[in-house]
Amino acid sequence: MALVVQKYGGSSVADSERIKAVADHIAHTYRLGNQVVVVVSAMGRTTDDLIRLAKETSSVQPPREMDMLLSAGERISMALVCMALAERGISASSYTGSQAGIITDTVHGKAKILEVKGDRIRAALEAGAVPVVAGFQGVSTEKDVTTLGRGGSDTTAVALAAALRADACEIYTDVSGVFSADPRVVPESKRLKKISFEEMLEIAATGGKVLALRSVEFARNHHVPLHVRSSFTWEPGTWVVEEDPSMEQVVVSAITSDNSEAKITVAGVPDKPGIAAKLFRSLANHSINVDMIVQNTSRHGTTDISFTVPKDDLSTSLEVTNRLVPEISASDVLADTGIARVSVIGAGMKTHPGVTATVFETLAAAQINIEMISTSSIRISCVIRSDQAETAVRLLHQAFELSEN
Amino acid sequence: MALVVQKYGGSSVADSERIKAVADHIAHTYRLGNQVVVVVSAMGRTTDDLIRLAKETSSVQPPREMDMLLSAGERISMALVCMALAERGISASSYTGSQAGIITDTVHGKAKILEVKGDRIRAALEAGAVPVVAGFQGVSTEKDVTTLGRGGSDTTAVALAAALRADACEIYTDVSGVFSADPRVVPESKRLKKISFEEMLEIAATGGKVLALRSVEFARNHHVPLHVRSSFTWEPGTWVVEEDPSMEQVVVSAITSDNSEAKITVAGVPDKPGIAAKLFRSLANHSINVDMIVQNTSRHGTTDISFTVPKDDLSTSLEVTNRLVPEISASDVLADTGIARVSVIGAGMKTHPGVTATVFETLAAAQINIEMISTSSIRISCVIRSDQAETAVRLLHQAFELSEN
Repeated sequence: MALVVQKYGGSSVADSERIKAVADHIAHTYRLGNQVVVVVSAMGRTTDDLIRLAKETSSVQPPREMDMLLSAGERISMALVCMALAERGISASSYTGSQAGIITDTVHGKAKILEVKGDRIRAALEAGAVPVVAGFQGVSTEKDVTTLGRGGSDTTAVALAAALRADACEIYTDVSGVFSADPRVVPESKRLKKISFEEMLEIAATGGKVLALRSVEFARNHHVPLHVRSSFTWEPGTWVVEEDPSMEQVVVSAITSDNSEAKITVAGVPDKPGIAAKLFRSLANHSINVDMIVQNTSRHGTTDISFTVPKDDLSTSLEVTNRLVPEISASDVLADTGIARVSVIGAGMKTHPGVTATVFETLAAAQINIEMISTSSIRISCVIRSDQAETAVRLLHQAFELSEN
Repeated sequence: MALVVQKYGGSSVADSERIKAVADHIAHTYRLGNQVVVVVSAMGRTTDDLIRLAKETSSVQPPREMDMLLSAGERISMALVCMALAERGISASSYTGSQAGIITDTVHGKAKILEVKGDRIRAALEAGAVPVVAGFQGVSTEKDVTTLGRGGSDTTAVALAAALRADACEIYTDVSGVFSADPRVVPESKRLKKISFEEMLEIAATGGKVLALRSVEFARNHHVPLHVRSSFTWEPGTWVVEEDPSMEQVVVSAITSDNSEAKITVAGVPDKPGIAAKLFRSLANHSINVDMIVQNTSRHGTTDISFTVPKDDLSTSLEVTNRLVPEISASDVLADTGIARVSVIGAGMKTHPGVTATVFETLAAAQINIEMISTSSIRISCVIRSDQAETAVRLLHQAFELSEN
């Protein structure tokens, strides 16, 4: 008998018919002799509808009240899942974040989980019932309702799996796993049967949308095996697990691309110590996550600094940077929203030199100019023009022979 | 400075525009120097939509899960009211039934309030903020979410007003107060400026829909003055207060009528002790609220017993009654759904004889047959044919000269 946490996203519980299908699958898992804990997101577009309603009602949305509003969504979906399980003869009870003992800090809208008590969940399991827990929400140390932000329901599921020492955490979504590239861009891309947490982290950080970065980090830190799979086909998906040193490593696992960043170039700054420090400290003070940074070779005593930031933070970043222009004696500040970051990811890269050369050769042969480069031990990212991103992904997928056959 | 509890029903917060109007009024009351506690229902048709969704999803709706589902409704409306107040520069925080300390028993779907802690509400008031509380919901002694059933939000408001020793509890609704008769039936009916709790109880019990019976009972028991008024016109409505002995009493305050009951007649039962006891004990054991009971004069050693029950309970009542037929040797059981109960209510009736005679004369003059009669010290109710109910109400309203001029 295994203990499994099953997390169902918004598209998996989008309407009554979907909820019935989900209940069938939970019942099936339960009847095979497993203990099952279910975590659900809000139904389909509920969250978007609630946000729209808030905007219609008021130009001011205090974060505490926004959390109270949005946390209504999972109450609806989890109660409905319990009803459908009851109809299938399975005793099920729903638990809010607060009832499940998901204790968070007080940062409304993107709270961090501090502790998972889970007493009522354990009691429900011991009673032979299926506990159904609201994803995305918790209760703060001040006893206020909080939400966990983007990817919050995945994080709830992983945190619960860790607290309950579950054998696996299954993340049900509308795609059938993690692919070697976005199948809409590369139709011949293949589903990965197994990847390491590190690879999954790089995929999530560079545009792979299947899992949110923080839930993967949490799973890695707490050794929770993840199984990403489809609630539409129910076929086995992708296991995300600890790296197995005995296993032969694939050199390259996946190619990702990401249009969500913009590039800022600060031109003509004096090439002397302390300039970059001032700039990036100011950006950090405004909570702006700078991703890639490139500083060109100095010419005539001045240099250009380029860096990428999330497009959402572009206007704040430009304000901060422009304010510094006199202090750092820059000649110009330029913004560029037409970039994409294409990344090649693979745990085997560590022991296989030559991957970087293949990436450069492939892009050069297609006349694709590389504007910025950054690497980790298992990733190479190139910033290129965004209208060339799909071509680049297809060519790199081919070059590393990632297709099914 | 007064402490006022303002309760807004579903039609008062039906959409963004209505919520803005409500926020304006709360802000106005607050700026006059009052402390304000707000209680809200779910928006307009939210509850109906959620019930429909539950029925679509499952044929089984466990009451605990139904409560979890329905309690989502007030979270939405109260968060939106707080946002609109924030936009108006007023510090407001929303509180669930649980956060407000509305402790109930464990009867899901129609829980009774056991205690109102209200610590966070008091703290919010002391901090100069406007607490906005979810009506209709509480938390059980088992720490599960409960709902209070029909009229639940009114009950929440009155219970909070009692716990906080508020100066008044204002019930905002879509009508402008309590009328001498249903204005759709009697256009010349007038709004009552002030009535006693006892009269309001009789009105609520006999078909007046403005306030639910239990909230009026709670207000009477805890000496909470109620002010029933419109959130559409904002004009002063009807005060429901303790009877003032010094005040000259109106003989008749209001005429009500009610189509929600059916009549059952058990014919030809032996006229001997214990028969009626057996019948009504069995009905009570099935939680059926029998309203009026009439036993005819015995003829040839047998008698007929007629009684009224809510139409919703008719089929159960018939089952229970039919099952008893052999035991009580009845000759027949007849059901009649074509009845209405017309009631004349007034605190002054106690000291003014002759009201009963006027009722009988008025109905007789219009050839309206009275099938059953029941009275209290301040009410006379007659069961008549339902198609004659509106005529009866109009004629009685005239006979007691209840119109404005």
